[in-house]
Amino acid sequence: MVEGNLLYAQSGGVTAVINATAAAIIEAGRKRPQRIGKVLAARDGILGVLREDLIDTSAESPAAIRALAHTPGGAFGSCRFKLKSLSDDRAHYERLIEVLRAHRIRWFLYNGGNDSADTALKLSSLGEALGYSIACIGVPKTVDNDLVGTDCCPGFGSVAKYTAVSVLEAGFDVRAMHSTSTRVFVMETMGRHAGWIAASAGMAARSADDPPHLILLPEVAFDETKFLAAVHAVVERVGWCVVVVSEGARDQRGDFLADAGREDAFGHRQLGGAAPVIADLISRRLKLKVHWSLSDYLQRSARHIASKTDLAHARGVGQAAVRMALAGKNAVMPVIERTSERPYAWRIAEAPLAAIANRERLLPADYIRADGYGISARARRYFAPLIRGEAYPPYGDDGLPRYVRLRLRPVKRKLAPYDPLKS
Amino acid sequence: MVEGNLLYAQSGGVTAVINATAAAIIEAGRKRPQRIGKVLAARDGILGVLREDLIDTSAESPAAIRALAHTPGGAFGSCRFKLKSLSDDRAHYERLIEVLRAHRIRWFLYNGGNDSADTALKLSSLGEALGYSIACIGVPKTVDNDLVGTDCCPGFGSVAKYTAVSVLEAGFDVRAMHSTSTRVFVMETMGRHAGWIAASAGMAARSADDPPHLILLPEVAFDETKFLAAVHAVVERVGWCVVVVSEGARDQRGDFLADAGREDAFGHRQLGGAAPVIADLISRRLKLKVHWSLSDYLQRSARHIASKTDLAHARGVGQAAVRMALAGKNAVMPVIERTSERPYAWRIAEAPLAAIANRERLLPADYIRADGYGISARARRYFAPLIRGEAYPPYGDDGLPRYVRLRLRPVKRKLAPYDPLKS
Repeated sequence: MVEGNLLYAQSGGVTAVINATAAAIIEAGRKRPQRIGKVLAARDGILGVLREDLIDTSAESPAAIRALAHTPGGAFGSCRFKLKSLSDDRAHYERLIEVLRAHRIRWFLYNGGNDSADTALKLSSLGEALGYSIACIGVPKTVDNDLVGTDCCPGFGSVAKYTAVSVLEAGFDVRAMHSTSTRVFVMETMGRHAGWIAASAGMAARSADDPPHLILLPEVAFDETKFLAAVHAVVERVGWCVVVVSEGARDQRGDFLADAGREDAFGHRQLGGAAPVIADLISRRLKLKVHWSLSDYLQRSARHIASKTDLAHARGVGQAAVRMALAGKNAVMPVIERTSERPYAWRIAEAPLAAIANRERLLPADYIRADGYGISARARRYFAPLIRGEAYPPYGDDGLPRYVRLRLRPVKRKLAPYDPLKS
Repeated sequence: MVEGNLLYAQSGGVTAVINATAAAIIEAGRKRPQRIGKVLAARDGILGVLREDLIDTSAESPAAIRALAHTPGGAFGSCRFKLKSLSDDRAHYERLIEVLRAHRIRWFLYNGGNDSADTALKLSSLGEALGYSIACIGVPKTVDNDLVGTDCCPGFGSVAKYTAVSVLEAGFDVRAMHSTSTRVFVMETMGRHAGWIAASAGMAARSADDPPHLILLPEVAFDETKFLAAVHAVVERVGWCVVVVSEGARDQRGDFLADAGREDAFGHRQLGGAAPVIADLISRRLKLKVHWSLSDYLQRSARHIASKTDLAHARGVGQAAVRMALAGKNAVMPVIERTSERPYAWRIAEAPLAAIANRERLLPADYIRADGYGISARARRYFAPLIRGEAYPPYGDDGLPRYVRLRLRPVKRKLAPYDPLKS
């Protein structure tokens, strides 16, 4: 007996593999026609649910869904929109239930980070209160790798691989150039709160004086004097130096380095960037030629260098989310459990959303090298399997990956319009 | 009869495939033991010749040389060091000849851009004047693609592929995020003088409103009012906008946008970057949320996404350089000739260094879209084969490419020390 439709939505910053999770959910849903009517998707995350802006994924061909699994970005649109508490945002929650009811949605799978886990958790309890039975499953995704309750987050392994490969390659460049040109290269990574991405760059260094030589983590307060001495020492010893700085690196007062009072000639505040701040500092104080990079979205959308392990995780949590939904679970999230480190083995476990929502996992202290500027052997064991394996997308004769754009056929609306951004 | 040794050196900014040229030269040299004694390499380009800092490549295993072909950077070290005229720098030229003579170097292959072509050209004539017979072959290399006399430059196809793939991927990201977050993404590319790299980003756009929507080229003077109107129009029509800006983009006075008077809170001049300048402008004037990236060395060292065509060119010019040297040529460069566009076919031709040295090829006017913010169909036909094909490096179990570091065994010195940077 068909029990209703399944609704999927994407939330927060997208990743190289979030669409692989989407593809796994759609494919798993299609295999259970006896229970699941249609797999619908909300456009732009929870906003699409509020707006009743839904997409009928049954209009997409099997080939398109297969291609979705190797396409970066978020095919259905994502959003940065956090619902407040039930009492503060009651109208929104009631609207959500109204939309779910109107479209006979029995299962809601919300693919995001800790904010999204919070939204799914609140919705999971409200359904009951408002007399509409809805099962909410959080599906993990974040390049920041900062969810608790899971060994790692789908999306992270790929950005980590991009980061380690990029800094490895840039190191070969600087090594070649340093005698008459650039002596220090500074590479900025994402990670506003936690240093997971910056730390993953450390995987490129196999021995003591390999790049990156110094990593600036949000977890270690920046000490200008100590840092400049460390750069100087590396340049003296190696001849050149590669620095990785997290966008979340902070000074001893807790202020982001990226906000270090940069203004243009008209006194306007400049858009941030920790790398140029660090590069300026080195250039000015050590009188060394510096180059810097800031990859921004390139790093998290770099499907061309995705990690095979990460891709398997992303598909795994998607498949498990459908299994959990059909098993009658509510307010849970499929998470990655590391069952063995060498050889690496993992399985999907189940965690309550209540234990995940709004919490944040920083880099553990024992993952950080004693001097604060690198990663420990423990961290290397953690990161190694996550960046292992390549999962190249197919390429066309035009030299570009064959990424797909879905048809995104809208579901006919049944309710009055509702504008969540104006209410 | 062994006629002498062959000397190879790398010059200027390195590329993802310059070592493939080096590997081809070393392998070709090893196949002619009846004529070539050893293939030597100079450390850090022409500086290594001046310093008599030479490397014996015969110490490297065949496997190491095969791995060299997929390793980015410049394995022997490069330099930014331009020799002046024969009259101004006569001591340097005489020292060069002295070193070449001491190490029985019969052929000098200098792998670089137009400055290096100039150095090789000067040296080619001096050998004769100083009574030492030396054949100088320029070997093309530059991500900037600005050499005249060749259809393209080895190194360019790979940076173009990186650029087009990266902007394609970032476009999927911004498309997903624009409803509640980033509306405009600005990606900076290399290319201080010519817009080839920025223009190659245009390959990611298959139809009118695909990203990148706007490209800022050095060849088109930046007009702030017109540009902001263009961004606004794209955002109105598409909902979001991707801009690519060349580091060489200039205003109507010819000043680099990257030098637009950025200072920090202490009045110190900031290290450049055209992307943050453009991002600030859009953020301030159009009140849109903007993200930006600046790949710097990541783009030119990105061997992980090298173009197969580019790699073939890089190997081809290396092999041809050895052929030309053994054929008794002097003061020439092997160049790429496009013999057919569809299907793409190419061959190696020979060009005199005198026609290449110190000249610069800008993006032709008919490669630029009528509005100045994109590329023409003609440009697309030019770029297409250059980014075609993937040439992945092998990866290790640690998830990273197996790049090689050579042994770099020094050749015993025979002459008095000489410091080219102090004289």
